[in-house]
Amino acid sequence: GVAAPAIAQSMPEVKWRLTSGFPKSLDTIYGAAELFAKYVSEATDGKFQVQPFAAGEIVGTPQAIDAVANNTVEMAHTASYYYVGKDPTYGILTAAPFGLNTRQQNSWFYQNGGNELANEFYGKAGLYALPGGNTGTQMGGWFRKEIKTVDDLKGLKMRIAGIAGQVMQKLGVIPQQIPGGDIYPALERGTIDATEWVGPYDDEKLGFNKVAPFYYYPGWWEGGATIHFWFNKEKWNSLPKSYKAIAEAAAAYANIDMTAKYDAKNPGALRRLVGAGAQLRPFSQEIMEACYKAANEMYEETSAKNPDFKKIWDNMRAFRGEEYLWFQVAEYTYDNFMIRARARGG
Amino acid sequence: GVAAPAIAQSMPEVKWRLTSGFPKSLDTIYGAAELFAKYVSEATDGKFQVQPFAAGEIVGTPQAIDAVANNTVEMAHTASYYYVGKDPTYGILTAAPFGLNTRQQNSWFYQNGGNELANEFYGKAGLYALPGGNTGTQMGGWFRKEIKTVDDLKGLKMRIAGIAGQVMQKLGVIPQQIPGGDIYPALERGTIDATEWVGPYDDEKLGFNKVAPFYYYPGWWEGGATIHFWFNKEKWNSLPKSYKAIAEAAAAYANIDMTAKYDAKNPGALRRLVGAGAQLRPFSQEIMEACYKAANEMYEETSAKNPDFKKIWDNMRAFRGEEYLWFQVAEYTYDNFMIRARARGG
Repeated sequence: GVAAPAIAQSMPEVKWRLTSGFPKSLDTIYGAAELFAKYVSEATDGKFQVQPFAAGEIVGTPQAIDAVANNTVEMAHTASYYYVGKDPTYGILTAAPFGLNTRQQNSWFYQNGGNELANEFYGKAGLYALPGGNTGTQMGGWFRKEIKTVDDLKGLKMRIAGIAGQVMQKLGVIPQQIPGGDIYPALERGTIDATEWVGPYDDEKLGFNKVAPFYYYPGWWEGGATIHFWFNKEKWNSLPKSYKAIAEAAAAYANIDMTAKYDAKNPGALRRLVGAGAQLRPFSQEIMEACYKAANEMYEETSAKNPDFKKIWDNMRAFRGEEYLWFQVAEYTYDNFMIRARARGG
Repeated sequence: GVAAPAIAQSMPEVKWRLTSGFPKSLDTIYGAAELFAKYVSEATDGKFQVQPFAAGEIVGTPQAIDAVANNTVEMAHTASYYYVGKDPTYGILTAAPFGLNTRQQNSWFYQNGGNELANEFYGKAGLYALPGGNTGTQMGGWFRKEIKTVDDLKGLKMRIAGIAGQVMQKLGVIPQQIPGGDIYPALERGTIDATEWVGPYDDEKLGFNKVAPFYYYPGWWEGGATIHFWFNKEKWNSLPKSYKAIAEAAAAYANIDMTAKYDAKNPGALRRLVGAGAQLRPFSQEIMEACYKAANEMYEETSAKNPDFKKIWDNMRAFRGEEYLWFQVAEYTYDNFMIRARARGG
């Protein structure tokens, strides 16, 4: 009949490979790529299939960006800030030091033109991006010794990536880039003094508490880290409108579900870590202020020489001011009351 | 050929009507139903169509639950707590007084068995539900006079719905149920002394600041109000698996996007309201404590006589304790620093 070819054309068989920037052991973050693949396949009766591969199965995390750009794989699910060596703009599209929190990131991407700004930038590299997860505010990481003053940071060898490392460097930290699997032995041997990773649930798996018991917060460089789905731009553009709609909704589902999973899994892990001897410590006000000042210097310096960075950071920064104007009213006051009520045993 | 009928069967023509519990003027909340309809239609090349109708176009808000249950319409997009007259359990599935905040609600529904618990309850009424939006922590509302002590609440006629009204009643408030459009004249005439609605962006449209200038926060009865998509259960079950996947992902997209929109729109509205004379006031510690105590009494009394309510509240309450254990660490400390940095002009 006439109808059959039309239907077939609008639902072509598409089989794509996705390289994750993460190992399967991070079920929170890797799981979001699996959720995306599941929904895309179910929505199309298996006609649009995306197969996720763990980091290293096809290419390693550092190669994921080029693999998508040159169409070795059609998709990646990774943190844009891993590619900050190419351009610092990649850094702030995951998380800007002292930037937006999780809800504010989502609001910026979906409702303040953030996705459009991001894709204007990513498009130059042959990528198209959709937000595909958020970790929540991360922890500041694990330290072998207590860190009380800015002086305590001087000479500290810390595994910390990207522009956050640049900020820390201004305070005398010697930033180290070490893949996840190599951090524990480096900490144990004392090759490094500290490391940041994600938060209780992911950190617990790597056992850092055994060799670096001081667990600091907050991770001011990741107030709400957005993980992205990256598509080869031409491949994305070649999709029929229906598949684009399916992918957009599935990515949004993966986005909200990843945060939901972190929020559900982190409390139990935090309890267990503290039970196993982790010493929870807030960064001192002195350290927070010094890092904030150093971050502002980094923003000024980088904006002066990088117009893409400046355009995006100026927009984010203005949005941040508006957001905290609002968040400090109902949201913050509510959480404040609930935290104190809980502490009283309510 | 053989293939064509199989394809046709797996993508049947489905045309459903959705009654919203809200007017079109609330573009944030009504817009989430439009977003859902858009993605479902695009994903299926127009084969699965959901047409949203504003409250009152087919049935009014109070009738939406029965209209879905008896299949007058296949879907609603509404707040479960509007139907608390049928059972108080409907109330806490939107927002529990002193309950979960927005991210915690999402975590509960998606990752702590909340959707399963909710649908066990909704299923008895012939409904199937998916979260489809969240407003964020709402404001405490508009008051003609300042409210400083618990004594100031006595005899106060306040438009406040559902179980929050029951809690307020314990403190001497006389709760009033008034539809959105009738609130302004009631406040202006002094028939009521106060009203709660949503937050700055929605409230601004109704102009309450002109007749009740004291704008209190937080709305402790709605730490993060979830709006639901309700489906007639049999109709939901009749969908092919592909359409269910599409609807689930589109509902999750509507969920995260509604919060993103509120977060993007509220700051500007708050500025304008304050510029137009609204007096921002936090509820006093005395009032918050008294409301918290009254809410706990309500929970005990209702749990004692309603097993569905007890089952869901016990689960939510335990989850709340775990969530704030975690949120007080990285999230809250980060927001606290950012709020103070902003206040200093940083």
